[in-house]
Amino acid sequence: MGAISEDRPHPRLAADALTGFCRNLFAAAGMPPGDALLAARMLVEADQRGVESHGVVRVPIYVERLLRGIMAAKPDIRIVRQTRSTSVVDGGNGMGQVVGAWAMDLAIRKAQAEGEPAFVSVRNSNHFGAAAWFAEQAVTHDMIGFAYTIGGINHMTPWGGAEAILGNNPFAVALPMKGEAPVVLDMACSVAARGKIIVAAKEDVPIPRGWAVDRDGVPTTDARKALEGFVSPVGGPKGYALTLTIGLLSTMLSGAGFGSEVTHMYEDFENPQNIGHLFGALPIAAFEDLEVYYRRMAKAAGEVRGVRRSPGVERIFLPGEREARTAAERARAGIPVPREVLAELRETGEKLGIALP
Amino acid sequence: MGAISEDRPHPRLAADALTGFCRNLFAAAGMPPGDALLAARMLVEADQRGVESHGVVRVPIYVERLLRGIMAAKPDIRIVRQTRSTSVVDGGNGMGQVVGAWAMDLAIRKAQAEGEPAFVSVRNSNHFGAAAWFAEQAVTHDMIGFAYTIGGINHMTPWGGAEAILGNNPFAVALPMKGEAPVVLDMACSVAARGKIIVAAKEDVPIPRGWAVDRDGVPTTDARKALEGFVSPVGGPKGYALTLTIGLLSTMLSGAGFGSEVTHMYEDFENPQNIGHLFGALPIAAFEDLEVYYRRMAKAAGEVRGVRRSPGVERIFLPGEREARTAAERARAGIPVPREVLAELRETGEKLGIALP
Repeated sequence: MGAISEDRPHPRLAADALTGFCRNLFAAAGMPPGDALLAARMLVEADQRGVESHGVVRVPIYVERLLRGIMAAKPDIRIVRQTRSTSVVDGGNGMGQVVGAWAMDLAIRKAQAEGEPAFVSVRNSNHFGAAAWFAEQAVTHDMIGFAYTIGGINHMTPWGGAEAILGNNPFAVALPMKGEAPVVLDMACSVAARGKIIVAAKEDVPIPRGWAVDRDGVPTTDARKALEGFVSPVGGPKGYALTLTIGLLSTMLSGAGFGSEVTHMYEDFENPQNIGHLFGALPIAAFEDLEVYYRRMAKAAGEVRGVRRSPGVERIFLPGEREARTAAERARAGIPVPREVLAELRETGEKLGIALP
Repeated sequence: MGAISEDRPHPRLAADALTGFCRNLFAAAGMPPGDALLAARMLVEADQRGVESHGVVRVPIYVERLLRGIMAAKPDIRIVRQTRSTSVVDGGNGMGQVVGAWAMDLAIRKAQAEGEPAFVSVRNSNHFGAAAWFAEQAVTHDMIGFAYTIGGINHMTPWGGAEAILGNNPFAVALPMKGEAPVVLDMACSVAARGKIIVAAKEDVPIPRGWAVDRDGVPTTDARKALEGFVSPVGGPKGYALTLTIGLLSTMLSGAGFGSEVTHMYEDFENPQNIGHLFGALPIAAFEDLEVYYRRMAKAAGEVRGVRRSPGVERIFLPGEREARTAAERARAGIPVPREVLAELRETGEKLGIALP
């Protein structure tokens, strides 16, 4: 749910060109061509959907981790335990996008084979980007998809605490619709993205009360003090309980790292992250006739969209619908990329002899 | 997450006495003795845990619905579809607590029998009280429990809307711990409980900005206008996406009512509610050695509790821990029940010839 600042129009790049560039970077950093393309597509798709926080802005750190060998370019991804409807996957310290896509696909295939709910837990992975992508993979198979992950940086504290041992952990649920974009919940647990606080600190403006606490856990509107402190959980103790639960679901069923075991994605180049995920796929036909399900979903969507609107509101969106519309617009008009992000991409490209298009 | 106002100490009742009274009320309203006891225990347990919003305060409306025949005292609860690891349950318009307990037990037994994740969807049920109770049933079987339900009253609007077609839908996840209370996430999707706005309106004091919007969907601090309007979702669009998703998960896999199909629990005595739930049970042993899981959970809990604390904070709680401590205290000292709730219980008892202890 990140947003880019809009002080002047950003240059726009075509999705294909941006994807090709990122694919070439990943391939030059040692990834097999198919994995490089998959990861590039997932990142550019996030930008295309307007979820810039999980888009190409992450490419430089991913490439740096690959080049330093702290993330494996050619991971040995394997199943270490399984039943008919569950698997535990060791991601071989591969890129989270690649490991996650592999594991979510496994969950879907297991759910398909048995016609039963299937869950796949993952350890020894890395930051996987936008949770929505994984949950959405299920919808073309007439399944509801679930994706949970622990975050790649500990930015949050337990409620009442002043020490960051919790990630701003995201999860996603995707429910298929017939003939239109699925309903997709994709949320992390903070009131505001840390990126917005970084922007406020750069611009030397205060942040709204409630976004963050300082290093002692005291609420602050000073963006710089907020950056020394912690982002606040949405709904106070609710957001704390939610992020802790997502973190535990993502790690305790696979042996992935939790709390102090999670190393900092941007600062620690010595210790692999051992990031954990949990993926689930629920085949709708096990519960309901597909025709009935899709008809009732369409009715529900129609009711939601058709409610009386607040003053000034032009349209009611279903969760994920705004992102799907943004993606359609950006497919035509190109993807706006902030100049500072382009500069970092260019710099990363120069290291590997690959020119930004 | 409700709270009772504390202007003067409430009378305290022993859990056993209160349970016996509620059991007798439900039995007098036609419920079989076992069901009456089960429902009474669940409600009193919510009060005992400090979750008064889902405790005995609900008994008068439940009894009224039973007596009017709009909720079935002796429901024919049955499985209408199933696979090895899924079932769809028709609750026969029974009390949500009874139907939900039946369905959650079924999910656990199916997960036990197959050693696989099991999910049970429910239709034709009613308001089930505290979601935590159902998720927690799984933990003594070394399983992670999930419980989702659609709410019994539409109090929320889609983001940008001004028409209540969404419930303040709650969900719960419970993760077992060894030798202590499980970690239990149990949250609904509003910033504040509507009950708190009712209290503010009665006391003629403003409510904090962000709690509610008026009938046109415009933010308000006027408690009376807020009661004519809608409670606000936690985190704005996040809470909207969350409550919608919980609502869809609870209804689209079973044929339960959604949106305008949900009748008002307190106002409509003509049309059954057709409330839907979804329950899940994940057997931990399918993923991880139990000994390893419990050891890692204990380590995680120790880290969370052991973080540096904010000024004035005496103790860090795990989600559900505060409730478990409150329950232990109230087991000794009795359960405080507000006088107005006692008056309503007494009145309900008088109708049925049952004296409040």
